[in-house]
Amino acid sequence: MLGKTPAGNKLPPNVHRAVLMRTITDLAADIRAGNLSLIDLLEQCLARIDAVEEKTRAWVVVDADCARRQANRLADELLHGHDRGPLHGIPVGVKDIIDVAELPTAAGSKRWANAIARQDARVVEQLRQAGAVIVGKTVTTAFAAFDPSVTNNPWNRGRTPGGSSSGSAAAVATDMVPAALGSQTGGSIIRPAAYCGVCGLKPTYNRVSLQGVVPLSPCLDHLGVIAGNVSDLAVMFQAIIQPDYEAQRLPTVTPVMPQEKKLVTLDGLFADRQDSAMVEAFESLKNDLRRKGWVIESRPVPASFNEVLKHHRTIMAVEAANYHEERFRRYSEDYPPKMTELIERGLGTTATEYAQAREHQSKIVYESSTWFDHRGMAILVPATSGPAPDRTTTGDPAHQAVWSYIGLPTITLPFAVTGDGLPLGLQLAGAGQTEAELFGTAMALEAEVDFRRPVLG
Amino acid sequence: MLGKTPAGNKLPPNVHRAVLMRTITDLAADIRAGNLSLIDLLEQCLARIDAVEEKTRAWVVVDADCARRQANRLADELLHGHDRGPLHGIPVGVKDIIDVAELPTAAGSKRWANAIARQDARVVEQLRQAGAVIVGKTVTTAFAAFDPSVTNNPWNRGRTPGGSSSGSAAAVATDMVPAALGSQTGGSIIRPAAYCGVCGLKPTYNRVSLQGVVPLSPCLDHLGVIAGNVSDLAVMFQAIIQPDYEAQRLPTVTPVMPQEKKLVTLDGLFADRQDSAMVEAFESLKNDLRRKGWVIESRPVPASFNEVLKHHRTIMAVEAANYHEERFRRYSEDYPPKMTELIERGLGTTATEYAQAREHQSKIVYESSTWFDHRGMAILVPATSGPAPDRTTTGDPAHQAVWSYIGLPTITLPFAVTGDGLPLGLQLAGAGQTEAELFGTAMALEAEVDFRRPVLG
Repeated sequence: MLGKTPAGNKLPPNVHRAVLMRTITDLAADIRAGNLSLIDLLEQCLARIDAVEEKTRAWVVVDADCARRQANRLADELLHGHDRGPLHGIPVGVKDIIDVAELPTAAGSKRWANAIARQDARVVEQLRQAGAVIVGKTVTTAFAAFDPSVTNNPWNRGRTPGGSSSGSAAAVATDMVPAALGSQTGGSIIRPAAYCGVCGLKPTYNRVSLQGVVPLSPCLDHLGVIAGNVSDLAVMFQAIIQPDYEAQRLPTVTPVMPQEKKLVTLDGLFADRQDSAMVEAFESLKNDLRRKGWVIESRPVPASFNEVLKHHRTIMAVEAANYHEERFRRYSEDYPPKMTELIERGLGTTATEYAQAREHQSKIVYESSTWFDHRGMAILVPATSGPAPDRTTTGDPAHQAVWSYIGLPTITLPFAVTGDGLPLGLQLAGAGQTEAELFGTAMALEAEVDFRRPVLG
Repeated sequence: MLGKTPAGNKLPPNVHRAVLMRTITDLAADIRAGNLSLIDLLEQCLARIDAVEEKTRAWVVVDADCARRQANRLADELLHGHDRGPLHGIPVGVKDIIDVAELPTAAGSKRWANAIARQDARVVEQLRQAGAVIVGKTVTTAFAAFDPSVTNNPWNRGRTPGGSSSGSAAAVATDMVPAALGSQTGGSIIRPAAYCGVCGLKPTYNRVSLQGVVPLSPCLDHLGVIAGNVSDLAVMFQAIIQPDYEAQRLPTVTPVMPQEKKLVTLDGLFADRQDSAMVEAFESLKNDLRRKGWVIESRPVPASFNEVLKHHRTIMAVEAANYHEERFRRYSEDYPPKMTELIERGLGTTATEYAQAREHQSKIVYESSTWFDHRGMAILVPATSGPAPDRTTTGDPAHQAVWSYIGLPTITLPFAVTGDGLPLGLQLAGAGQTEAELFGTAMALEAEVDFRRPVLG
């Protein structure tokens, strides 16, 4: 049993690992067994933040006092038998495009730096209902687009942590919090998670509410989770899922383990974009899985994929321009170069181009249901084109954006480390609404791959 | 026809009167007849603001550039035959507890002074749909409660303009804008309107959306309008009314003129609170109306009224405490004395006290339907206990709060000026959802009373 940790104390790295690298489910069991107090858990997160935030810059704001008040109240609840489930007392981070009452939602902009939110976003409300402790707001690139943020990649500070959910990925990778909310329009959850060697979930389109979240492109925006392992993604997802439209109650999403050890790959998907480290590591992964009894079936890339990236960019540009136009014209100084380019591209797009893109998107959504032989089938692809590049970019979004465009759920988990010490992620995509099956397959793969995250930061 | 007025030019008082003291309906006709451009109309409002705002302090922010852009776009629309109706191009003010995209919603607080709204409140969206030009945000007391604001009463700067919608009332009274949005939980529309010698509408509870408005007490909060005459209240109300729940379309609210010249008064209502100027003026009003053929029927005050003020305060205190508690505990310096007292009172109230109050409120709502012999019946009472008192207070809310509590629609219009030069308002209350009939009765009375607002400010 761990002793009481005074606020602000630095912990030796092996102490934090003992606690913080466990799954949320294990932490929850420890808390209920009396082996860990949730006050201690929070203090260990805050101590990690004290120790590594200066080098990492994952946070816009950490509200330690408020987190301590939440933890105290939640500890008191548990003491009185009110148990909110596995997230009860678990510290989490919230990407800074998502409203947390009493904290500003700057969305990576100067103009909104003091724009205090009067209300929680729907997902934050849901996290509080589930007992999570909101520790603070994590860094996002400006307006959740492509301009690099201040956050460092904890594996190598010369590399990008990816974007736009850069702070959430770096905070989880350095064990400052077990999990954090992210969002993805192109590849903003899966890419930073993969570059930082942690797990990410981009759910099915519209399965998590975007109410109270700064939009980038409403037809492509997804709210999701970054966490240290697949089980934690599932616990977080259960808390933030929207009620079923008809039943008006929360669906239960329990990971469903796969019936057979079988995966489908898409032959040559974005091959021209992949660097050699990824090509080699992904080949080894497939061989390794085959050795372990998995059937890896290679199928051709659907022809409709050829148009996806072009149309994805059109939709994103037009919708970003639609949301930002007035503000952009008046406060152009708040818009960094890549965001400016995106908006200007959107403003210069004709309605027919946009209509074509949206039509293609609608058609591929229908087509996609024919790709899956059965409900639990998963497609295995690389999460990114390679390891994290240098900091002039947040990386290539192609491998992630295709799934944002179609709205299918994806999970990334780390599976290898390159020769120069950078993590690589695999990506699983499933049919719409099959997060439960996707969690199961991801857990099975997580058990097969030989990856152990070192102490970072 | 008025010539083009360069921005920022001061107008002689008689020029602004020629334009700004007309009804919105008349202005709309002038605009369509080519006798007035809506650019000129806006410039005249801005010139009035330049001339009198320093002495009045009605505005938190005037966004002249943005207003000019709106006016130009709306002028262009009219030129191309797109006519949004009577509010097309009419400049309006918005109380600073209501979100206007790109402007902060400070709600009278320092902490939210830079809390820029990302979206318009529902009512502001509706005003824009109707073609209104949003000129800026008007001063509110802190959190729309009782602590006096910086705004001066344009009739006498030693007196309060009333609260909490003090800026909206003063801006209309000085002809800076023809109309402005206000809100009322106790008496925050009717009281400042009456103290400033203008008209006010507090609609039926829940008939105007509160989405995007900082709450004070959700079971008592009402969104409404302050304007120079009853016709303008009706035009504004038509724009902001919520769609009928079932039809999901905007109901049409055309003023219905009364079938008979008959009013009901409540004998001795709050008599102990009325000062002699109001008692005498209200008696003269009744006598004058009788001479003009009106039947004024006096009825006893319903016994249930005795408990109203006590329970009103309980509900308001508890609900204000509920919304503000966390913020109040952390940032107590943002809470002025009366608001502090209200919240502390709320925090000290037992659940059973609150439940009693809510039960009483529910019962009186049902009882109130028995007070009205027919759909168009109006109750005539004083709007306030007397003329505006000194600036240590925003005035006694009793005469207005009773109607906020029951949720019935009320209108105030000025009917007299006291010996020391302060206006007095009458108040009409109708059955729920009878705004159309109430407008008709108010227009009939407006034609009977001898009141002409001088140039103020």
